[in-house]
Amino acid sequence: MLRTHTCGELRIQDVHQKVTLSGWVQRVRNKGGLIWVDLRDRYGVTQLIFEEGSSDKSLLEKAASLGREFVVQAKGTVLERTSKNDKMSTGDIEIKVDSLEILNPSKVPPFIIEDETDGGDELRMKYRYLDLRRNVVREKLQLRHRMMQETRKYMDGQDFIEVETPVLIKSTPEGARDFVVPSRVNPGEFYALPQSPQTFKQLLMVSGFDRYFQIVKCFRDEDLRADRQPEFTQIDCEMSFVSQEDILNTFEGLTKHLFANVKGVQLEEVKRMTYAEAMSGYGNDKPDLRFDMKFVELNDVAQGKGFSIFDQAELVVGICAKGAGEYTRKQLDELTNWVKRPQIGAKGLVYVKCNEDGTFKSTVDKFYSNEDLIAWAEKMGAEAGDLILVLSGDAKSTRKQLSELRLKMGEELGLRDRNVFKPLWVVDFPLLEWDEETNRFHAMHHPFTSPKKEDIPLLETDPGSVRANAYDLVINGVEIGGGSIRIHDRTTQQLMFKHLGFSEAEAQKQFGFLMEAFEFGAPPHGGIAFGFDRLCAIFGGSDSIRDYIAFPKNNSGRDVMIDSPSTISDEQLTELSIKVSLSEKK
Amino acid sequence: MLRTHTCGELRIQDVHQKVTLSGWVQRVRNKGGLIWVDLRDRYGVTQLIFEEGSSDKSLLEKAASLGREFVVQAKGTVLERTSKNDKMSTGDIEIKVDSLEILNPSKVPPFIIEDETDGGDELRMKYRYLDLRRNVVREKLQLRHRMMQETRKYMDGQDFIEVETPVLIKSTPEGARDFVVPSRVNPGEFYALPQSPQTFKQLLMVSGFDRYFQIVKCFRDEDLRADRQPEFTQIDCEMSFVSQEDILNTFEGLTKHLFANVKGVQLEEVKRMTYAEAMSGYGNDKPDLRFDMKFVELNDVAQGKGFSIFDQAELVVGICAKGAGEYTRKQLDELTNWVKRPQIGAKGLVYVKCNEDGTFKSTVDKFYSNEDLIAWAEKMGAEAGDLILVLSGDAKSTRKQLSELRLKMGEELGLRDRNVFKPLWVVDFPLLEWDEETNRFHAMHHPFTSPKKEDIPLLETDPGSVRANAYDLVINGVEIGGGSIRIHDRTTQQLMFKHLGFSEAEAQKQFGFLMEAFEFGAPPHGGIAFGFDRLCAIFGGSDSIRDYIAFPKNNSGRDVMIDSPSTISDEQLTELSIKVSLSEKK
Repeated sequence: MLRTHTCGELRIQDVHQKVTLSGWVQRVRNKGGLIWVDLRDRYGVTQLIFEEGSSDKSLLEKAASLGREFVVQAKGTVLERTSKNDKMSTGDIEIKVDSLEILNPSKVPPFIIEDETDGGDELRMKYRYLDLRRNVVREKLQLRHRMMQETRKYMDGQDFIEVETPVLIKSTPEGARDFVVPSRVNPGEFYALPQSPQTFKQLLMVSGFDRYFQIVKCFRDEDLRADRQPEFTQIDCEMSFVSQEDILNTFEGLTKHLFANVKGVQLEEVKRMTYAEAMSGYGNDKPDLRFDMKFVELNDVAQGKGFSIFDQAELVVGICAKGAGEYTRKQLDELTNWVKRPQIGAKGLVYVKCNEDGTFKSTVDKFYSNEDLIAWAEKMGAEAGDLILVLSGDAKSTRKQLSELRLKMGEELGLRDRNVFKPLWVVDFPLLEWDEETNRFHAMHHPFTSPKKEDIPLLETDPGSVRANAYDLVINGVEIGGGSIRIHDRTTQQLMFKHLGFSEAEAQKQFGFLMEAFEFGAPPHGGIAFGFDRLCAIFGGSDSIRDYIAFPKNNSGRDVMIDSPSTISDEQLTELSIKVSLSEKK
Repeated sequence: MLRTHTCGELRIQDVHQKVTLSGWVQRVRNKGGLIWVDLRDRYGVTQLIFEEGSSDKSLLEKAASLGREFVVQAKGTVLERTSKNDKMSTGDIEIKVDSLEILNPSKVPPFIIEDETDGGDELRMKYRYLDLRRNVVREKLQLRHRMMQETRKYMDGQDFIEVETPVLIKSTPEGARDFVVPSRVNPGEFYALPQSPQTFKQLLMVSGFDRYFQIVKCFRDEDLRADRQPEFTQIDCEMSFVSQEDILNTFEGLTKHLFANVKGVQLEEVKRMTYAEAMSGYGNDKPDLRFDMKFVELNDVAQGKGFSIFDQAELVVGICAKGAGEYTRKQLDELTNWVKRPQIGAKGLVYVKCNEDGTFKSTVDKFYSNEDLIAWAEKMGAEAGDLILVLSGDAKSTRKQLSELRLKMGEELGLRDRNVFKPLWVVDFPLLEWDEETNRFHAMHHPFTSPKKEDIPLLETDPGSVRANAYDLVINGVEIGGGSIRIHDRTTQQLMFKHLGFSEAEAQKQFGFLMEAFEFGAPPHGGIAFGFDRLCAIFGGSDSIRDYIAFPKNNSGRDVMIDSPSTISDEQLTELSIKVSLSEKK
């Protein structure tokens, strides 16, 4: 090695040792005949020192010539520092350098390589390799590494077999758009990149693998939003001979293992809630349980008192913000404006301040007596000092709006601490959801999800009310994973495709191999997939997954560092039997 | 779980327990009022028993109705067997079944699901999910799983960070053909799938990651040979501040770790050999060292004796096959015909049998005296009972032919034991090789490999003789991995591209980002990549990698199970701004 020690390794007990260090120049200070150089690598920073008089003149000149981010090798002796720095693990020592080699100079980097940088988003993406040099960025990828290793440790310990499923597969019309790959050897035909290894993992269950997992890249050609990437990673799992309960327990185990071993956090029991409870209690299928502020329906106490907005509403529903009774008129006006923004879309906001003296101050005082409001407060468990916020309208939109308001209030009241983790299983999702655009039902999870046995008759009479054996893991209001118990017989799978609007021929063409596999002894099975990028972001306390991906793409799906995608040669196109046809795109 | 135990778990100490098992029906025997069912899962086989009289009649009928590969759940009591089967881990017990549920029936499978099967290659590929049900096939993938976990354990223990590099990257003209992916969002532009993460791992070194690894899918659109797959997996690694020696030691460590922990084999020291030594000693840059039979050049003792074939030859070279002196005339004729086959291409074969009485029997007796042949034998270390085999001609072809003959003799003499492992580092590969077809030099490893410092001046005068800091790991004659110390400065990298025939503009367009990165403080670095599929095959004692891939493609790059690649819809093509253009392909 071009070093005897890393830059994070030397301590007071190493004093007098002859050492060789290699790394990057973080900083050079030159004062009163002394030159100090902070030398950095992945492991830490060590101070080098050069002294006029005791150091050779050419050596001093070389040290003085060093620029930021030069790569150097320094040989010297470990000394005890006179002024120690207890903020650095190596702060007790410094290296008196005898010889210095510049392994590679550096141009001045386009932005500062420190935890706080002056580089904008675009610039840091273009020079991603320099951005990755910053400790705060590299540490995110080290967290990701730790998450991967611990995931595998747990899964291996639970007898799961890691199997690599193919990347070059077949395009299917269900779900998001596929990325496709023209085949040179089979002209006019295309592979597709997998949106998930769903069918393959189910086939592995048919093969008797019993327990499968994989940490795997998946691909979706969607219009990119801020926090979506065309390629992403999931922890993909499947188990045989299980009920939903077994899967929840196994992956609750994984979640606890990761929190304990990566973050040192001992998670309490993971709560469970049905989809219906989540929607009525939080207006949301991924409630943030770091705080309570549960929905309370007020129709019975708020209607019939002459306030026509409430009287005409399908739903009157409120939340109680504990301790927010101090909100000023200005704050309350801001809240009202906030819920009326087009992104939220409420028509207005009714509030009731619970005063310390037992009286109330509300926007609807003229419709409701003090007794009325006492009834509201009782229903909501509101006490002196609390603030009741009420929305009304059609049930679906109102719940959605109140869910946003609840999250905002949680944020404002400091109840969404990034160091608190509240995981939750949401279960009993609907099997199907109606799509207004295509005028047909879509699978809410995917077409391989099994309906609850007792709900199967409803498939013919009221498909929208059929519940699935489907579940999501939610942490702090973020959906981390989802899965289901699968259909494992041909008849039910065919019925499902029929309800999703597939013709028999289409179903056979796309998924014939899977339905045929079900006829050769398919075991009952189910599984789950975790969004790994998002899981890492949650662990790291970030909102964005991009920081947890080494080389992410921008919002146009472009890697600005390597300048990809790019044009390819006519020879390549000809070999692949395709032509670019820009004119047809409008 | 739909079971209390797996089918490989119950032992004599479990007798009298009430248990529930689930699995596949392997076999049903019905004799004298007794029905035995072998129930199989991934973990083993357990015998179920049903008895006329003591079992319910409907239960007996159900048991008798079971077909091969039915999936059933059986509840019953563990009994001690009267006739134990010590070939099965569960052979001491059987389950007296009280209730039986058919979880899923099965059609008669298209081939027998046992270690020995009657299914042909095509049929087993089409029903790969049934082929995977066979223990011998599943065990290969379990070995692969073990290899992955142990690789990660070692790498993590050595402070390597696992980083996922992108799959959607940029097409580059160097090397094999790229698979490309049309971008919908950027019409007329394409991503490429990586042939390796080479540039990204080098950028991670520029980023100061210090030690990187990844077990990663790579893609090559080559014309497929029997043992190539369009997608394959490699263990990809890179280290900073290292010399070649550090890399060899680190990955010798990985190799030993895997042999010890996966196969229970303690490897001896890994030998080292230069490329030049390998070529002159074995005619091959990946010699099989399970046996010796080293080349001995015979020009000095074989030329000038009037045998014109030898006299005109650039090289006369032989091997000594120990103990093959007993070969019959017929066997020797067969060998002669074998080397003359077009695949080998030798003009003829000279042999010398070393008789027990000290005399010789050779095909060239009339040109060489007994004393001449004594000199040959001495040179070759041949003794009574040995067989000397000699080829001649131009040096390059002759070495290649003799290398093939050496391997064949090793095979015939039983010297290539699949349970013996002889790893070897081949070092000092040439930097460049001349390509007759394109009439220019190609990088033998890849364009990022550094030349040996002392050979750099030869780049201008004799490029073909420049040695690289490049190395291969070879096990039993199979190349398992290769790597190099990289170029880490812009000047040398540009020089390299020039010698490879890149124009400055081309080099800049394709690899500008990497050369620019080298200007911002790139550390000296190097790495290696192991072919993971092949490594697993070697560990499993197979010649073919296909068995070690869960869902392989056939020789036309086709997955016959899911029928991929396939046509895609006109809407998809239009969205992607491409057209199929079959006519241009001839």
